[in-house]
Amino acid sequence: MNTELYYNPSDTICAISTPPGVGGVAIARVSGAEAFAVVSRIWKGKDIEKMKSHTAHLGEIVDSESGRMLDQVVLTVFRAPASFTGDDVAEISMHGSRWIQREIIAMLQKSGARLALPGEFTRRAFVSGKMDLAEAEAVADLIASSSAASHRLAISQMRGGFSQKINDIRQQLVELASLLELELDFSEEDVEFASREKLVNLAGQSSVMLHRLAHSFSTGAAIKDGIPVAIVGKTNVGKSSLLNAIVGDDRAIVSDIHGTTRDIVEDTVEIGPYIIRFKDTAGIRRSDDPIENLGIDRSWKAANTARIVLSVIDATTMEMPDMAGISAERMIWVINKIDKIDDVEALMQNLILPHDKSRVVVPVSAKDGEGIDELKKLLLNMIENMRTNEGEDEIIVTNARHAAALEAAAAALDELVKGLNDSIPVDFVAQDLRLAIHHLSTITGTISTPEILQTIFTHFCIGK
Amino acid sequence: MNTELYYNPSDTICAISTPPGVGGVAIARVSGAEAFAVVSRIWKGKDIEKMKSHTAHLGEIVDSESGRMLDQVVLTVFRAPASFTGDDVAEISMHGSRWIQREIIAMLQKSGARLALPGEFTRRAFVSGKMDLAEAEAVADLIASSSAASHRLAISQMRGGFSQKINDIRQQLVELASLLELELDFSEEDVEFASREKLVNLAGQSSVMLHRLAHSFSTGAAIKDGIPVAIVGKTNVGKSSLLNAIVGDDRAIVSDIHGTTRDIVEDTVEIGPYIIRFKDTAGIRRSDDPIENLGIDRSWKAANTARIVLSVIDATTMEMPDMAGISAERMIWVINKIDKIDDVEALMQNLILPHDKSRVVVPVSAKDGEGIDELKKLLLNMIENMRTNEGEDEIIVTNARHAAALEAAAAALDELVKGLNDSIPVDFVAQDLRLAIHHLSTITGTISTPEILQTIFTHFCIGK
Repeated sequence: MNTELYYNPSDTICAISTPPGVGGVAIARVSGAEAFAVVSRIWKGKDIEKMKSHTAHLGEIVDSESGRMLDQVVLTVFRAPASFTGDDVAEISMHGSRWIQREIIAMLQKSGARLALPGEFTRRAFVSGKMDLAEAEAVADLIASSSAASHRLAISQMRGGFSQKINDIRQQLVELASLLELELDFSEEDVEFASREKLVNLAGQSSVMLHRLAHSFSTGAAIKDGIPVAIVGKTNVGKSSLLNAIVGDDRAIVSDIHGTTRDIVEDTVEIGPYIIRFKDTAGIRRSDDPIENLGIDRSWKAANTARIVLSVIDATTMEMPDMAGISAERMIWVINKIDKIDDVEALMQNLILPHDKSRVVVPVSAKDGEGIDELKKLLLNMIENMRTNEGEDEIIVTNARHAAALEAAAAALDELVKGLNDSIPVDFVAQDLRLAIHHLSTITGTISTPEILQTIFTHFCIGK
Repeated sequence: MNTELYYNPSDTICAISTPPGVGGVAIARVSGAEAFAVVSRIWKGKDIEKMKSHTAHLGEIVDSESGRMLDQVVLTVFRAPASFTGDDVAEISMHGSRWIQREIIAMLQKSGARLALPGEFTRRAFVSGKMDLAEAEAVADLIASSSAASHRLAISQMRGGFSQKINDIRQQLVELASLLELELDFSEEDVEFASREKLVNLAGQSSVMLHRLAHSFSTGAAIKDGIPVAIVGKTNVGKSSLLNAIVGDDRAIVSDIHGTTRDIVEDTVEIGPYIIRFKDTAGIRRSDDPIENLGIDRSWKAANTARIVLSVIDATTMEMPDMAGISAERMIWVINKIDKIDDVEALMQNLILPHDKSRVVVPVSAKDGEGIDELKKLLLNMIENMRTNEGEDEIIVTNARHAAALEAAAAALDELVKGLNDSIPVDFVAQDLRLAIHHLSTITGTISTPEILQTIFTHFCIGK
């Protein structure tokens, strides 16, 4: 269904904004020019017209036909433009039974409101200039955030830090573009308003910055969706027990998060501010069984795509797996089964491992939990180090749409630099510059099409 | 765990009041003498002390230690005593991510609030005299209500209709009791302040009324939990297909309701204002197989305990099951498989059924859906008729605790009448009367013990 057909920004819309299900309280939100008129038709209490903005009132929702009282509610009114959407907004706080929620929404529809599309309240906030597009997208990320780190990125984006950065770059490019346009106007006089050197420098710098931002998406996505950590090692070294030991008491939190991301089959654990997605892999060993070899191939793949690899070794045999190709900065050596070792200290002192100088190693017993906390600490440190190396204070892109737009803008600037070096005519240069500006503009929504808006807001939940 | 140990009515309490899960908006409720002080510690915005009651304010929740902004929220304040609980109440409307919900509750706890026990907000409303006990219990019923009929009963009880009725009866008994007590004081003078005849009459009338109310619990429970309807008939008459045809498009609604009442294995459908619990039964036929006979026994049991029985007959064979013992008022004859019959009209005209005069009969085809709507209509009519016969305008008891108290009060009054007829001493009579009053008092909570309150409110959800 093309819901765009049903999008009329002057409709008055309604939806339940609270999570689906039964609870003490549920909220129906109504927004639009007719919001107060619509609610008035089912409201028994103080005259809504006489309510001041930002005030809450006890009253009743009554069926306009039968006069039957449906629920005792608290109605809060927010008058345009001082509301989330910029329109008149009424919020009805009702008893949270499924039945009452359904009935009140049905009554609001009968009274002239239309059921809101996913994200339509936020879309109105964007349309009315309450927030730009990247900020609006951050609202959805904020609602989906399930860890401190992903939450922090969303908050920062919602507050406009990312938009500011994009706008700064864009502004510089726009200034240059206007100089170039001026040159085009006077093209027959062969004047150079824009210094070619300045242009090459600025385009080059901007391109580097945009590439870096786009590249930060791999970190952003990992923070948003969970940082992939592979557990690899030979068979029977205790990989699955290790995973169980790590997950341990955190099960409750895990299942909590699973509810929102059902497609992920790995075990997901919150460690510090991060969601970690542990991938337990098949034991790595030489095998003649083609099916087992398939599993081993997959283990290698998991190790290669993971951000961090836990390489597990059985302390009683100290057989080393072949971990060539995995760099030391993203590998933790886990010496398991130390409960079976008499002198752990001696073992650790005599340990010979690849990457011997920069190696990170921790002795654990998955069986009795020894060393597991230390392992979690090492994991956290490694993640924090990676982020510092990638520029901790930098803005991190968490949105695939933004990453693609940044790459496209950077590519246009690269073309521009190449063109200037090849001394191509100024109108081609100006075209590359306009293209770069265009792509940056789509991020914050300075330029937007109904299709872009549609794609973005359908990923929201209804009621936001 | 005896949560009673943790119940201190002067604590400031907090909880998420909206349904669990992710949504556009979630609400944290804080109630108690320190509610505003607690929220102030994590609030950045207008001074809460300067906010008027029933006003909403945009601001930020910030970590008091790190100063980091957690979320942009709307804070609504309700000043004592003009709040749901009677205490100062603050409601924080936040972005509905699990993580934000969890963090804000954690921050409120760090700032001096305690996590609310189930139903503790409503318990406070009871303690502060905002509602009586039966009204408070109706809040839980209201939240759990999943049909128009169950919702209507809960609303009526929440508005105090039931409490009023109980209080009226109780008041009369109290007046008589005080006259009897007076007699006891003057017992040596052998005066009769209370007319024995009046006493017998009133006690008898009250007892009848209380018995009737208690008896209405079977209707109340059926409305609350779903009205049991058994589908019986010989084997292969299409009972299961009939059930599927009835459930049909309503599946979505069904699964919706199943979520709240998981213990029910039958198919549950919303028809008109009622939830109907259909019980599909094993075919009734003579069998030598003891296990099959067990199933048939169960079918009979289902038919006997059901409110309504659908007796299904195969139109192509017209074999009659033995339905002796099921009265006509609660039986619908369903002639199935009419898609295989050429002249349905002739079949229906020549139909011979038990209870031939008052019988309700409907021809259907479970296969192509013909007659299913008519069957539903007949079901609805039958339920409405039953309710009219039981006294539609009467108050209906939906709560097992109330039913038990009503029975106990009625039994005490029956004892009293018997005692008066046997001319037993006035102090025994007075004791029965006090007992009856006591039981009525427990319903509205005029008399309540921590144990009673505990039992009632632990069945609430947290946050209400």
